Amino acid sequence: MANKVITISRQYGSGGREIGERLAEALGVEFFDNKLLEVAAKDSGIHQSHFEENDEKRSNSLLYLLSTAYGQGGVPFDDSLFFAKLEAIRKIASEESCVIMGRCSDYALKDFSNVLNVFISAPFEARVKRAEEVYGITAKHSADYVKRIDKQRTSYYNYYTDKRWGQPQNYHLCIDSTALGIEGTTAAIIRFANEFFK
Amino acid sequence: MANKVITISRQYGSGGREIGERLAEALGVEFFDNKLLEVAAKDSGIHQSHFEENDEKRSNSLLYLLSTAYGQGGVPFDDSLFFAKLEAIRKIASEESCVIMGRCSDYALKDFSNVLNVFISAPFEARVKRAEEVYGITAKHSADYVKRIDKQRTSYYNYYTDKRWGQPQNYHLCIDSTALGIEGTTAAIIRFANEFFK
Repeated sequence: MANKVITISRQYGSGGREIGERLAEALGVEFFDNKLLEVAAKDSGIHQSHFEENDEKRSNSLLYLLSTAYGQGGVPFDDSLFFAKLEAIRKIASEESCVIMGRCSDYALKDFSNVLNVFISAPFEARVKRAEEVYGITAKHSADYVKRIDKQRTSYYNYYTDKRWGQPQNYHLCIDSTALGIEGTTAAIIRFANEFFK
Repeated sequence: MANKVITISRQYGSGGREIGERLAEALGVEFFDNKLLEVAAKDSGIHQSHFEENDEKRSNSLLYLLSTAYGQGGVPFDDSLFFAKLEAIRKIASEESCVIMGRCSDYALKDFSNVLNVFISAPFEARVKRAEEVYGITAKHSADYVKRIDKQRTSYYNYYTDKRWGQPQNYHLCIDSTALGIEGTTAAIIRFANEFFK
């Protein structure tokens, strides 16, 4: 019996992370968010801080790019980090049923069977509100901040994959988390997953 | 108790029409696909054939645009058709619970409560296959045909609304119909709708 893997991609402030966490808990499987970076660091030998600094965004400092120039295997350092994450995602999915957050995990597992790809969105205003209430971003900067993180994730995904971030055709299921709320969305994904993995 | 309205937008060849039809039947409500054009024609006094010719696509013949020049209320004829459809959608949604296919119905009903907006997608290859098997498009032309209809719908939606067609944030729920199949997708939407309209 193949492992059952759910990948969760999400717009910033959509509650996707919380939904992923609840989902893993309800299904009794491991939740890979920052923990994925630990695995990538351990297996690649690259210090975890580099994965954290570049998490789901591309480096845009020329100085940084020049100073780190080339990573492992003759590829730029940024790409080394990306490839290490890809390998970590594939290793994890081969070993156990789990929920994996972002990091192009839908792309990393495109040749795996038994992978359910989910995208969580929410209206912009709701995400700005959540950025303020849950993440403590000041009202003065929250709207710009949400836009910037979206741009980072889009740029990262589009650069490293052959798809466009947040297009329904990349995912089996996309849900606006405000339709049923965090709890209701989690329950809806579980119902869908039960049918999908049947 | 407000009417319960489900709008279904869909990529060509995703099976969205069949899903919408089954959904309406299962919920015991009216299904508005071409029937919507009948209502728009009747209420606007514009002949139904014009609605059929311009259904979910913008006119691209200059001669046609020039010859028909201006429609009702001092706006171009194409826009008259669009506005007549908007009005028909709003009238229908005010009068009864129903399932409405495409025609920017999610946009038309953006100020209505109790509207569930659903988008049905499917991988490109699956849609090409369905175009051949269900709609009888020849294998020589099927891939181009699917792309062209997608472009028409995108252009129509993006021109007439302030949103981008097929972006998850426009819909409460987007489903890849190949994940659970036509029947399974219909059932998943019903389960979601039951929670949404609770």
